[in-house]
Amino acid sequence: MTTVATPAELEQLDATDPLAPVRERFTLPDGVIYLDGNSLGALPRATAERLSQVVHAEWGRDLITSWNANGWFTAPQRVGGKIAALVGAAPHEVLVADSTSVNLFKAIVAALALRPGRRTVLSEPGNFPTDLYMIESALRTLGAGYRLHLVERTALADAMDDDTALVLLTHVHYKTAEQFDMAAITQAAHRVGALTCWDLSHSAGAVPVDLRAATADFAVGCGYKYLNGGPGAPAFLFVAERHQDAAQSPLGGWMGHAQPFAFDDAYAPAPGITRFACGTPPILSLAALECGVDELLAVDRAALFAKGRSLVALFAERVLAGTAADGVSLVGPPPDHPRGSHVSFAHAHAYEIVQALIARGVIGDFRAPDVMRFGITPLYLGWGDVARAADAVVEVVLSGAWRDPRFAARQAVT
Amino acid sequence: MTTVATPAELEQLDATDPLAPVRERFTLPDGVIYLDGNSLGALPRATAERLSQVVHAEWGRDLITSWNANGWFTAPQRVGGKIAALVGAAPHEVLVADSTSVNLFKAIVAALALRPGRRTVLSEPGNFPTDLYMIESALRTLGAGYRLHLVERTALADAMDDDTALVLLTHVHYKTAEQFDMAAITQAAHRVGALTCWDLSHSAGAVPVDLRAATADFAVGCGYKYLNGGPGAPAFLFVAERHQDAAQSPLGGWMGHAQPFAFDDAYAPAPGITRFACGTPPILSLAALECGVDELLAVDRAALFAKGRSLVALFAERVLAGTAADGVSLVGPPPDHPRGSHVSFAHAHAYEIVQALIARGVIGDFRAPDVMRFGITPLYLGWGDVARAADAVVEVVLSGAWRDPRFAARQAVT
Repeated sequence: MTTVATPAELEQLDATDPLAPVRERFTLPDGVIYLDGNSLGALPRATAERLSQVVHAEWGRDLITSWNANGWFTAPQRVGGKIAALVGAAPHEVLVADSTSVNLFKAIVAALALRPGRRTVLSEPGNFPTDLYMIESALRTLGAGYRLHLVERTALADAMDDDTALVLLTHVHYKTAEQFDMAAITQAAHRVGALTCWDLSHSAGAVPVDLRAATADFAVGCGYKYLNGGPGAPAFLFVAERHQDAAQSPLGGWMGHAQPFAFDDAYAPAPGITRFACGTPPILSLAALECGVDELLAVDRAALFAKGRSLVALFAERVLAGTAADGVSLVGPPPDHPRGSHVSFAHAHAYEIVQALIARGVIGDFRAPDVMRFGITPLYLGWGDVARAADAVVEVVLSGAWRDPRFAARQAVT
Repeated sequence: MTTVATPAELEQLDATDPLAPVRERFTLPDGVIYLDGNSLGALPRATAERLSQVVHAEWGRDLITSWNANGWFTAPQRVGGKIAALVGAAPHEVLVADSTSVNLFKAIVAALALRPGRRTVLSEPGNFPTDLYMIESALRTLGAGYRLHLVERTALADAMDDDTALVLLTHVHYKTAEQFDMAAITQAAHRVGALTCWDLSHSAGAVPVDLRAATADFAVGCGYKYLNGGPGAPAFLFVAERHQDAAQSPLGGWMGHAQPFAFDDAYAPAPGITRFACGTPPILSLAALECGVDELLAVDRAALFAKGRSLVALFAERVLAGTAADGVSLVGPPPDHPRGSHVSFAHAHAYEIVQALIARGVIGDFRAPDVMRFGITPLYLGWGDVARAADAVVEVVLSGAWRDPRFAARQAVT
């Protein structure tokens, strides 16, 4: 259906979409179809107002009293509890803190300490770089004996053995949108006595996640993509309740202390997830994250994810139908497979095509060496938007408009 | 002079203060004398406007392109370079990143790796807790053999020996305002082959700091106190240029990679201070920090610090003159000694006195078990403010107004 959808059919889909009014809760520039919400989520209208309140009333007027009076002190747990609802965790299993990278370090070191004697961390080549870098960092810091073993995803289960301490994977691949069967991998890890850590950066708010059903051990994720928390929003950390008493953070700062304001010389970890807090949290960025999360909590997420799948199918099929003869191929799983909510295509000139699309108001991104990636965010995209974006991809490829020299200059981040 | 200053003399001091107009650059509630800028700096008026721009124009309108187009990507180095001017460092020696606690971890682990074979980290009992906790965390993570040795400050130089890897101290003590002679301690450490890490959380923006003149090795500091960066503002890290090639971060995330957007599986540290970056920085909080730092860069800092010393003397002498017979004693060095810009007094009922003062619009804070602490911030306080605050302390103590039962209820943070 979707490939050949007529303008009238697309209009009908948007007109009858119960989620369509949600678009008005976000600010997006006129004339732009924003397909990069998987990299930086759009600005919720509520966020600007809330930040103004935090700045003027809470910081400017209430000053230091806001730590208690305005709930700053408990914001990491409060917002963590809200994110828990998006990832199938109990509220007391999720904390907002630091960056995804820093939380990876905490999870890796904590997990290895729970599996003494085991020396292997398993991941896959091509995992999101910071996941691999933080494993490297942790193993280098812990010293000799540990190893990072990278195994292609189809061979992961076979590579697990009694030396495997931790299996650390990204649930939805940042480039291909391939999605692991979290429950199956976690069960395979548990069968050999290993633990799991799932990076949910491209999953939380994008696809259904059920950490409890999967019996996951640790998870981390990012606040600035599908959670719409703003640039560099604080990240989150999940530690399964059953590990919380025994797990210890390698970054045991004062906010993770049992009594931070007793000012004791000796560290004593707080009970529960709070022991994974470290320094003072960035309240402005945290307040913005809470607004973004609240937008997701306000909608029917089953309907949202179903809409996302339909938009992904429309976009992928429409692009491929128009360009398959011209060097564009789908990267990653077909729309009807378990997958994330972004769609990637390979083309030898992906960089230039992305630039030409941006010049036309269709914002996606480029991932080296030859991938163009488009995030499909059903909170603020409709069928008409996605069809117009697909048609723009087809037009740029077929017309060769990307050959214009102004689209060739590389920048550090796109 | 200051103790007996008459209202006319105080008025004259404020009227002829070339820094007095700076007060108008900050938002403070009417009727409040804010003596807690050493815990959470006041809101600069420019910050609210700047944040609105970041939210609406940079995030909402320019979206993902802001990483390049609006300088988000280089903000940690840019703001670090500005802070460098406040702490006597070269611009390329300071990076804004993470929290003070997380930066302590980076500095501790990096320093220990630069001094292989040495096993002792030296600090003092009663150092700010998170400094001690992060040493504990780092040593626990690194494994057996290391020890934290806490020595009273007068005995530190004698305790340094050829097993000392790192001397980690807070330049200005968070409670007493005692100030270390950074150059003397650093030289003593260097004489035995050890490195130093200075926590500047109560120094940066409050007193002159010259890391280069002191030949300091590492330093960290907080953005939300005298730098007026907002609640939980990102922190900063200094690594002396001479160590930057050899030092390695234990938290080597993608933002510290030589080519973050090459998406290589293997970590390769960026040159210079950038290798100490880890995850994606919280841009909203970082933008607010930059505004706070800009306020300090805009004033004559020699004049600012001289004004601060004069205000400290006025406040301390006026409180003591009025209350010394009533159980209030100065904690820490006299006003004319090298010291920080906050003033602490001990009293058996310090908690209740602080609450009674807050009820009168004089905001200080309590530090367990018996200390009331008042931050003197010459950017937005004048002689009249400080004299009125001192008179309020005297009035509350002499009248016994703190005995009102409503001042006895404890809260987590004050």
